[in-house]
Amino acid sequence: MKITLAQLNYHPGNFELNTKKMLEAIAQAKKEGSQLIVFAELATCGYPAKDLLDFDSFIDNSNKALASIAETCDTIAAIVGCPVYNKTGKGKRLFNAAVVIENKQIKNTIHKQLLPTYDIFDEYRYFEPGNNTAIVEINGHKIALTICEDLWNLDDVSLYQSSPMEHLCNLNPDLIINIAASPFSKTQLQTRRRVTQRNALKYKLPIVYVNHIGAQTDLIFDGGSFIMNANGETIAELNMFEEDLQSFELKDKVFESKIGNQFPNHEFLNTAESIEKALVLGIQDYFEKLNFKKAIIGLSGGIDSALVLYLAVKALGSENVLAVLLPSKYSSEHSVSDAVQMANNLKVQYHNISIEAQINAIEHSLNPYFKDTPFGIAEENIQSRSRAILLMALSNKFGYILLNTSNKSELAVGYGTLYGDMCGGLSVIGDLYKTEVYELCNFINREHEIIPQNILHKEPSAELRPDQKDSDSLPSYEVLDQILKLYLEDNLGFQQMIEKGFEAPLVQKIMKMVNMNEWKRWQAPPVLRVSSKSFGTGRKMPIEGIYNI
Amino acid sequence: MKITLAQLNYHPGNFELNTKKMLEAIAQAKKEGSQLIVFAELATCGYPAKDLLDFDSFIDNSNKALASIAETCDTIAAIVGCPVYNKTGKGKRLFNAAVVIENKQIKNTIHKQLLPTYDIFDEYRYFEPGNNTAIVEINGHKIALTICEDLWNLDDVSLYQSSPMEHLCNLNPDLIINIAASPFSKTQLQTRRRVTQRNALKYKLPIVYVNHIGAQTDLIFDGGSFIMNANGETIAELNMFEEDLQSFELKDKVFESKIGNQFPNHEFLNTAESIEKALVLGIQDYFEKLNFKKAIIGLSGGIDSALVLYLAVKALGSENVLAVLLPSKYSSEHSVSDAVQMANNLKVQYHNISIEAQINAIEHSLNPYFKDTPFGIAEENIQSRSRAILLMALSNKFGYILLNTSNKSELAVGYGTLYGDMCGGLSVIGDLYKTEVYELCNFINREHEIIPQNILHKEPSAELRPDQKDSDSLPSYEVLDQILKLYLEDNLGFQQMIEKGFEAPLVQKIMKMVNMNEWKRWQAPPVLRVSSKSFGTGRKMPIEGIYNI
Repeated sequence: MKITLAQLNYHPGNFELNTKKMLEAIAQAKKEGSQLIVFAELATCGYPAKDLLDFDSFIDNSNKALASIAETCDTIAAIVGCPVYNKTGKGKRLFNAAVVIENKQIKNTIHKQLLPTYDIFDEYRYFEPGNNTAIVEINGHKIALTICEDLWNLDDVSLYQSSPMEHLCNLNPDLIINIAASPFSKTQLQTRRRVTQRNALKYKLPIVYVNHIGAQTDLIFDGGSFIMNANGETIAELNMFEEDLQSFELKDKVFESKIGNQFPNHEFLNTAESIEKALVLGIQDYFEKLNFKKAIIGLSGGIDSALVLYLAVKALGSENVLAVLLPSKYSSEHSVSDAVQMANNLKVQYHNISIEAQINAIEHSLNPYFKDTPFGIAEENIQSRSRAILLMALSNKFGYILLNTSNKSELAVGYGTLYGDMCGGLSVIGDLYKTEVYELCNFINREHEIIPQNILHKEPSAELRPDQKDSDSLPSYEVLDQILKLYLEDNLGFQQMIEKGFEAPLVQKIMKMVNMNEWKRWQAPPVLRVSSKSFGTGRKMPIEGIYNI
Repeated sequence: MKITLAQLNYHPGNFELNTKKMLEAIAQAKKEGSQLIVFAELATCGYPAKDLLDFDSFIDNSNKALASIAETCDTIAAIVGCPVYNKTGKGKRLFNAAVVIENKQIKNTIHKQLLPTYDIFDEYRYFEPGNNTAIVEINGHKIALTICEDLWNLDDVSLYQSSPMEHLCNLNPDLIINIAASPFSKTQLQTRRRVTQRNALKYKLPIVYVNHIGAQTDLIFDGGSFIMNANGETIAELNMFEEDLQSFELKDKVFESKIGNQFPNHEFLNTAESIEKALVLGIQDYFEKLNFKKAIIGLSGGIDSALVLYLAVKALGSENVLAVLLPSKYSSEHSVSDAVQMANNLKVQYHNISIEAQINAIEHSLNPYFKDTPFGIAEENIQSRSRAILLMALSNKFGYILLNTSNKSELAVGYGTLYGDMCGGLSVIGDLYKTEVYELCNFINREHEIIPQNILHKEPSAELRPDQKDSDSLPSYEVLDQILKLYLEDNLGFQQMIEKGFEAPLVQKIMKMVNMNEWKRWQAPPVLRVSSKSFGTGRKMPIEGIYNI
């Protein structure tokens, strides 16, 4: 049986576009002589469709899309992910389904049994877990058809009461097909591959895995759909970070066209490269799906905004990116010259607008109230917010989206001004620790200098007061980022971090900084997610809580 | 058996405070000769504790709190809501539990079976649903001990596969005890009462219901714990919106001290009054739990900021509230005089700071880029953001929290400036439609004029350009708010709204405005929730989605 893997970039709620893409894929698969085409999880409506799923009209539109897809499945069968109504009268109103179409008819509907509800996932918000364990037969092949998480309940994890594959296996399938919506993170590619491999080996079955590609606000789907044989070898893999369609022949339970190694996309195991591709796709799709073209960035001469400028140019083209230099009296000379060099390196247009007059006007207005107080956070924030006003004014006037340039270390400890440098429609590097920002910049500079050496080597500073350095109030980023990762990603509490060898007062100080800035992050822009735990929808902490951890 | 209902204001993660309150309640209950004291759901750790539940140290601290509570339960039994580890090796790592303490020992642990995961609830994120149906015996009484949602799966709802009460009922209990964490909304008091009453009547059992009181950022718990007899009559009710502790005698399955009607708190069925109390508590607890005292509010002379000022004064005292008038050249004269009168009516200190110089400086800086363009949204937003800078500067300098004054109608259609009037630590009236803002103001003015008549009767305007009126770009608020409610709260799609008699182009326009402003609301402050569907954590819509609904 020839099977086509359709790895597409769906747009949530855009049934017209999604259907068009799927129909084109079907036409192409038919041309290639396929007997079966496999689409990803919730393909008709896109993933995540969020609370749009609560509207009957949304589900009805998905059903219409499904019907028009079925119309074209004459010589080919199709597996389509979509939401379907739960008609049992009990439980949530929807199932997350894999519909099997054959001879233009819906032949089977499989319901997802394991509903991820953690981190960025909240599927039990919408869906009832399925409990119909059944084999699907297509062209004489007995298929264990599963949806994403259904494969993930292996012996040593057991996040769920049951393992759908255990039950399916009793029915002697020839092949596992998994349709997925598995977003990118630095470690997800390996994890995903390990889990599918363990399934192949455990059940001695080949696997077809079809993922989404494309970014949906904060989530970046990396694609990388693949076929794997029962011995756990990856036979072929679709491209990462782009749409792809490929067909493969399954004979006697074996995929034949082995391409040589277990990880055809191993080049992306270079973390920096995969992060770069992910972030570029994240920017691209945010703009395209919102129907915007142009980005504006406040270019400070520091490394964060330099990196964001580079990524934006890569995503949108230098002609669509405007850099704005906004120096104050605390800006060092090299800030301006470094920013100019950066803009020139990327052939990006830039404006240079002083914020001095604005700050003077503000300070004059506030003088009756501030006159006897020392320079402090309030004055620092005035500068940062003055920049934001100018950037947002240009954005509003000319239709740019402002890209935010905060990094994860800053966002974590609250080293940023709400309504100031925390502004923007999208946080591009808000899931990269400062040390990772350096790593990615060094990777970008690997062949020739794109980010000026000066920017790479100057000491980090917000330049909001004379001779300010990040290290005045923070430990070195090497130490800070280690502690942050243990706290944010590994869920270690105070005592456990001490046991890792960090000094108690330092851990205490950093935890406190993270905890007391929850209110700021509530109002942060969406953060492109590249780690297993980013700020945003996947992390829910109480603003007013006491962090007894 | 004498039973004490302990309705307390818990602070998430503040084990010290929560334990202290519970120990005091136990001491008081013992004094009153009670045999059983009942605390609310997840009382030890507070509700919602959110991702703090993911930390082992957090659960360990809850266990320590539980142990110290158990220590004092010698002559009295206690029912305590708390998270407990799931030691079965399968499923999520925690149960949402009701622990029964007798003779200083943990005698039973009941696990919540129905885990609300919709709207603002995401309990399946943390907890495994329980499946141990068992009666708890205390002092010879057979108790069906349930946790909040466990009572809510009645025949005609069936959001879950099973009904814990159906199973418990087979074991012939004498009494239902339900420990809850049920937040306030305009309609929730009636819904909650109807559901418990139906349980009482269906199972012919008296009910003890213990709820939280207190606000946790956006969620306001209203208390109103009560006892109900098997005939569905509410026998007594604890105070709403404040801590309360009351003891009642149960004899032969009947609570005796009937206080006269089914809804002792019927006075709060006056929606305006209950909303006022809820919002005041919301402000109070936000400040108290964050350890802040003082609020700052931009007072425009319009009705929204007038209402927020009134609520803030009620919550924090006039001495802790600072009003700031920030007129521009587009502000009408009455704006300033009305704002001054409002501040004077409430004996609130106010500053009057012109934003003209700042705006001139900004416009001068932008002149090279803006010079040939017409006045538009960009210029309007500059004014709004200039005000925000000054308010935030005062906030940062003197330790005020800025209260946001956006209403729900504005938030819905995007009639507000991000980083401008959308600023603030807490949105006080962001869940009140404009028409509800008027209703509440009229209620507040019922005895004597607090909010000046001028403010109540002037035509709504943002005053960001000459002679601007809200009605220039919006339909009347009476019509707008009806459409918004159908869309936001009743989940009606386009076609369904047309069928309700609204004009298609108007519905289309309003839906579009709501949908295209999702990106702004992503960065809005937490909104005190008083409706069944507020903006914030309970509503998750894709920023980049196509709203085919």
